[in-house]
Amino acid sequence: MTDLYNVEAAEKHANEALLLPISEAVPIYEQLLATFPTAAKYWKQYVEAHMAVNNDDATKQIFSRCLLNCLQIPLWRCYIRFIRKVNEKKAIEGQEETKKAFDFMLSYVGADIASGPVWMEYITFLKAMPAQTTQEESQRMTAVRKAYQRAIVTPTHHVEQLWKEYENFENSVSRALAKGLLSEYQPKYNSARAVYREQKKYVDEIDWNMLAVPTSGSSKEEMQWMAWKKFLAFEKGNPQRIDSASANKRIAFTYEQCLMYLYHYPDIWYDYATWHAKSGSMDSAIKVFHRALKALPDSEMLRYAYAELEESSGAIQAAKKVYENLLGDGVNATALSHIQYIRFLRRTEGVEAARKYFVDARKSPNCTYHVYVAYAMMAFCLDKDAKIAHNVFEAGLKRFMHEPGYILEYADFLTRLNDDRNIRALFERALSSLPPEESVEVWKKFTQFEQTYGDLASMLKVEQRRKEALSRAGDEGSAALENSLQDVVSRYSFMDLWPCSSRDLDHLARKEVSSAFQSEWFYIPEYIFS
Amino acid sequence: MTDLYNVEAAEKHANEALLLPISEAVPIYEQLLATFPTAAKYWKQYVEAHMAVNNDDATKQIFSRCLLNCLQIPLWRCYIRFIRKVNEKKAIEGQEETKKAFDFMLSYVGADIASGPVWMEYITFLKAMPAQTTQEESQRMTAVRKAYQRAIVTPTHHVEQLWKEYENFENSVSRALAKGLLSEYQPKYNSARAVYREQKKYVDEIDWNMLAVPTSGSSKEEMQWMAWKKFLAFEKGNPQRIDSASANKRIAFTYEQCLMYLYHYPDIWYDYATWHAKSGSMDSAIKVFHRALKALPDSEMLRYAYAELEESSGAIQAAKKVYENLLGDGVNATALSHIQYIRFLRRTEGVEAARKYFVDARKSPNCTYHVYVAYAMMAFCLDKDAKIAHNVFEAGLKRFMHEPGYILEYADFLTRLNDDRNIRALFERALSSLPPEESVEVWKKFTQFEQTYGDLASMLKVEQRRKEALSRAGDEGSAALENSLQDVVSRYSFMDLWPCSSRDLDHLARKEVSSAFQSEWFYIPEYIFS
Repeated sequence: MTDLYNVEAAEKHANEALLLPISEAVPIYEQLLATFPTAAKYWKQYVEAHMAVNNDDATKQIFSRCLLNCLQIPLWRCYIRFIRKVNEKKAIEGQEETKKAFDFMLSYVGADIASGPVWMEYITFLKAMPAQTTQEESQRMTAVRKAYQRAIVTPTHHVEQLWKEYENFENSVSRALAKGLLSEYQPKYNSARAVYREQKKYVDEIDWNMLAVPTSGSSKEEMQWMAWKKFLAFEKGNPQRIDSASANKRIAFTYEQCLMYLYHYPDIWYDYATWHAKSGSMDSAIKVFHRALKALPDSEMLRYAYAELEESSGAIQAAKKVYENLLGDGVNATALSHIQYIRFLRRTEGVEAARKYFVDARKSPNCTYHVYVAYAMMAFCLDKDAKIAHNVFEAGLKRFMHEPGYILEYADFLTRLNDDRNIRALFERALSSLPPEESVEVWKKFTQFEQTYGDLASMLKVEQRRKEALSRAGDEGSAALENSLQDVVSRYSFMDLWPCSSRDLDHLARKEVSSAFQSEWFYIPEYIFS
Repeated sequence: MTDLYNVEAAEKHANEALLLPISEAVPIYEQLLATFPTAAKYWKQYVEAHMAVNNDDATKQIFSRCLLNCLQIPLWRCYIRFIRKVNEKKAIEGQEETKKAFDFMLSYVGADIASGPVWMEYITFLKAMPAQTTQEESQRMTAVRKAYQRAIVTPTHHVEQLWKEYENFENSVSRALAKGLLSEYQPKYNSARAVYREQKKYVDEIDWNMLAVPTSGSSKEEMQWMAWKKFLAFEKGNPQRIDSASANKRIAFTYEQCLMYLYHYPDIWYDYATWHAKSGSMDSAIKVFHRALKALPDSEMLRYAYAELEESSGAIQAAKKVYENLLGDGVNATALSHIQYIRFLRRTEGVEAARKYFVDARKSPNCTYHVYVAYAMMAFCLDKDAKIAHNVFEAGLKRFMHEPGYILEYADFLTRLNDDRNIRALFERALSSLPPEESVEVWKKFTQFEQTYGDLASMLKVEQRRKEALSRAGDEGSAALENSLQDVVSRYSFMDLWPCSSRDLDHLARKEVSSAFQSEWFYIPEYIFS
């Protein structure tokens, strides 16, 4: 896994591929891009290798595989270069194709802070469009104006330059009209420029050369994650105060860019999907979840998140499908997934469906005691059926007698039934079979139980038995068996009320530390009686 | 308090007193010794000041006040000096008095590691006893032999010297008998010497000049406490393998010495008392508790420990007396003491006595919600009376609606009844009156409750309400209101099963930290739209 995502090795392979003939380079690129499907720089290098030898079909193929997932300006400029080259000789029809390609490109990456040169190239291209008639000339002028007006409200590195060019353009068209248009657009441009200056701070924090690797928890990764979170929050705040459709487009664009780099971060996928759902586009949310599960097929939490989105929107069958995919044939299904599916069935199909699934799930190799606890508590809390719950716990005990965690849960259940006779019996059964090193928590619970349900004698007795059982395990000195003042404090405390100060508590707790230490020197070796 | 036990000031006063005439020094000593009643060095200085001016009556008075609580050799040697001086001129009758004083002294401090010189002085004294007849001479020799034989089995700094003197003594009496006696005593002496060498290590760790002050938690204090604990454990191990009566005497002696220095340590008092009880001397245990409560009258835990000792030995009336002393007139009784007394009454006198006391305790100024919870849970767990328990909780709610802790306990109780309708109603009532900053834990419990008892919609709804309520309180950005992947993880976890790795959990948890941070920069100030 770590090896697969070795960044240094990837860079080395990419550099080697540069020196190879295209036929030998292809498998290297394919492997690199299978590992780093959002690495725009490798896609660009790959596609350029084909372009260099005029493999137009292969070039098109690659662009179709990468463009929509890699919203990166250099890659897309490469695309435009290719389109222009292909259409160069096709005269007017080719120019229309190129214009469409520009529009396509700008609709995807026109919001990028680095898209300024693309806008300029587009405008230059538009200005150079042939115009035979006055009508065509007027159309061309309108197209250029529109392009300028879109460019100058976009926060980019070149927004000031574009504004100046736009001023010149309008003044060259008509000094009379220019004034009105420019004063109309001046505040929008000002806002775009102001937002650009803020945005740049966030953009500068981002490492645009980073490869998407699974999180290793490094602080560098964390910084990048934080930088993206801040950038996303900035965009979500709609700093430019544009209409919500445009703002949402920008936000989606930022998420898409973010996921090129944080491709393995389930929280980003989740935030993106829920943002879509909240913005009213359930379809988009579902599409994001599909992509997320392709990126992170092992993420159980993403599957619950996806199922939850479907379920909460009323799409029960769709939600069920998500659960079924998670469970697979049941052999590798986790205990938790059994539990969540049982709960889902209980919510959506009722008691009987849940019961049926539980009966099967018990046979699953990964069925832990948790599944019994979950089912029993569901029967108790939701169906108010203490008898079934009790039966389930009792059936589970045959299988999980050796699990202290199960004993504690069963004891909690019996405590809710206020059934002290059975609680005591359970503790005795469990402690007679659990080895001492496994029974610490059970003894603790038994002690607490007697402090609530017992009389003084039974309280003291269980504490003594606990000490004897556990000191045998820990091979401690007999000092550990003595009743200590700390035991008194524990017996006579109630909730957060203590019969002593916190300083006393600290002091008494130190005692515990030192009594383990005592065992070392507690016995005087025989040899000193010389 | 801290000022009262100022050690430097005490030393200064003691030094000043040295320079004053006795009449002016007396009040200084009295004050010092009221604060440090076990400071043997001040008692010695005080008594020596009287002895210097031959205030015999005052001297006697002081000795009678300090000797039995201050088992310290220098102070006791001072006593012998006084006794010898007083009896000097009284001839034979005076010598008997002096011998009695020696015996008295050695029975109290003869086990001290520093008691060697006292044994020597005693033997010298015995040797100098006048003997007119052969019978008297023989008696004297027997007395000297007995003293030697006691001294050489006592681990002291001078045990080797005493052994040599004893050898000389026996050889001087009878070479024939000496061999048998010395070979009989050699192994006992060897054992004493070996134990002395071990014991010295513990003794050397102890600061014998320390004044008894309440714990401040300093590491120096902790070291001393540890040193004493080790020394006590060493003595309790009976390293010399002597008969248990003698061993117990040594152990009691060590505890008494320890308490001169750790006078304010409740755990030492407790250990001492329980050691007595365990050794079969209930009377001694009770006496120690009386002294402990004199030393630490405010220690609630010591009172419970004392009451417990009485109760567990069947002395219910004596135990009741301890509780009654703790409660006093009820005005200053703590909530915990009310609770423990109610439980005590329930155990020893029954339901009605407990109920009666609860009814009164409710009116006590220190009656907190804990008393209601304790009484209700007692009714529920011990009397199986859910109705009374419910009534008590409901009555308490009128008084403690503003206490989140009470709401949580009441909710736990209703959860045990599996009464979701009333739990929901309780949460709603509580949350409508609790201010947001007080309701964090109640919201948390409400959320957990819906995760167990609710459907998906009610789960999501309560989480959303919780976020809205708490973000209003925390003045957080709207990002905090968004459903996060961490929320999904919390909804789809079960016990210790998580739908993600621990690394994922760490990552998601970091998110929480940063979203608080987000609020700072989340809003773009208006001024940037220039």
